[in-house]
Amino acid sequence: MYKASVRVTLRPSILDPQGKTTHHALENLGFDRVERVRIGKFVEMWIDERTEEEAERAARAACERLLANPVMENFEISVKKI
Amino acid sequence: MYKASVRVTLRPSILDPQGKTTHHALENLGFDRVERVRIGKFVEMWIDERTEEEAERAARAACERLLANPVMENFEISVKKI
Repeated sequence: MYKASVRVTLRPSILDPQGKTTHHALENLGFDRVERVRIGKFVEMWIDERTEEEAERAARAACERLLANPVMENFEISVKKI
Repeated sequence: MYKASVRVTLRPSILDPQGKTTHHALENLGFDRVERVRIGKFVEMWIDERTEEEAERAARAACERLLANPVMENFEISVKKI
């Protein structure tokens, strides 16, 4: 069994109103050293494959077909045996 | 300048309907080796502090005060110089 951790982030050119709102909220709380905030998704998948390569391939296919929107988002995957 | 990457995940005992829905959608797409899906947030913050320790401390405080709900969520932070 493998666990794939996927970080889905907005592409740099895409506006992020949720991140901007969070940034303002942090400023209002006194966090004046925070310059910028971007918000994405963090997806964990437990995958029952035999090898790390197969688990990584399944995770990548899941991102391409469902989890990430390739027009607006990038994704990074890390897989570990559990 | 430092970049803090924060993974906010639901505590294991908390139900995750969004993850369940995503799991079903993956099953319908033929991903029958995916056993479980959990969905969290991925927050990136650019922090203008002098040391990695100060940046990490600011990121942790931001999580405790705003980004994570301690009743339902855990968070992990990684900080790197940029």
